Amino acid sequence: MSNHGLSGDACPVAPLVAEPLSLASAVEMAAKFKALADPVRLQLLSSVASHAGGEACVCDISAGVEVSQPTVSHHLRVLRDAGLLTSQRRASWVYYAVVPEALAALSGLLSVATDSAAAVGVSA
Amino acid sequence: MSNHGLSGDACPVAPLVAEPLSLASAVEMAAKFKALADPVRLQLLSSVASHAGGEACVCDISAGVEVSQPTVSHHLRVLRDAGLLTSQRRASWVYYAVVPEALAALSGLLSVATDSAAAVGVSA
Repeated sequence: MSNHGLSGDACPVAPLVAEPLSLASAVEMAAKFKALADPVRLQLLSSVASHAGGEACVCDISAGVEVSQPTVSHHLRVLRDAGLLTSQRRASWVYYAVVPEALAALSGLLSVATDSAAAVGVSA
Repeated sequence: MSNHGLSGDACPVAPLVAEPLSLASAVEMAAKFKALADPVRLQLLSSVASHAGGEACVCDISAGVEVSQPTVSHHLRVLRDAGLLTSQRRASWVYYAVVPEALAALSGLLSVATDSAAAVGVSA
């Protein structure tokens, strides 16, 4: 009901199937889904997320996609600005890490499970 | 590795944190996230999903949002075309229902849990 709380990056939000989403939460979540709405960005996010320690530098992940390194860097910044990645410069490289709470919040929003077992049962 | 399987609407896909996403899966999933990348559509999806039986007609859900009924119908069609809703005409109204497998596939893709309990632990 309130428009406050928009700045929170990982506010717990009830699953879509549980209750109607507030406008404030919808605005916050839609911005994150927009960052995910690109195949290259999704691949880059999965490259970072599945890398050892959930962290990778541009040098690590540029090899896996068929776009230039500046394009990779651009997409990683979009994901960072959406709160899905964090970045840290070390020596010559910028390292990106996933924000598990942000992914978990989106995953929880889309969860159709009323019990915990079914939430990860999609690979069955 | 294969480009086959793009037509499947609810193919199980491993979580982003588990392994790099294939291009075919990334294209399929990005299209669904694009449908979710709009606050009004997210609110409409949650209205349908949280309605009794996971199904609602345009008449049920138009009341909850501040857009016209034709706009509501447009957004619902976008969600349907993305495979997130199904539609069925009965008498004068079109009824929309969620596709639980599609939501579950997206939720699973974004899951950071390696055990089932953590998958729904975002509200803790």
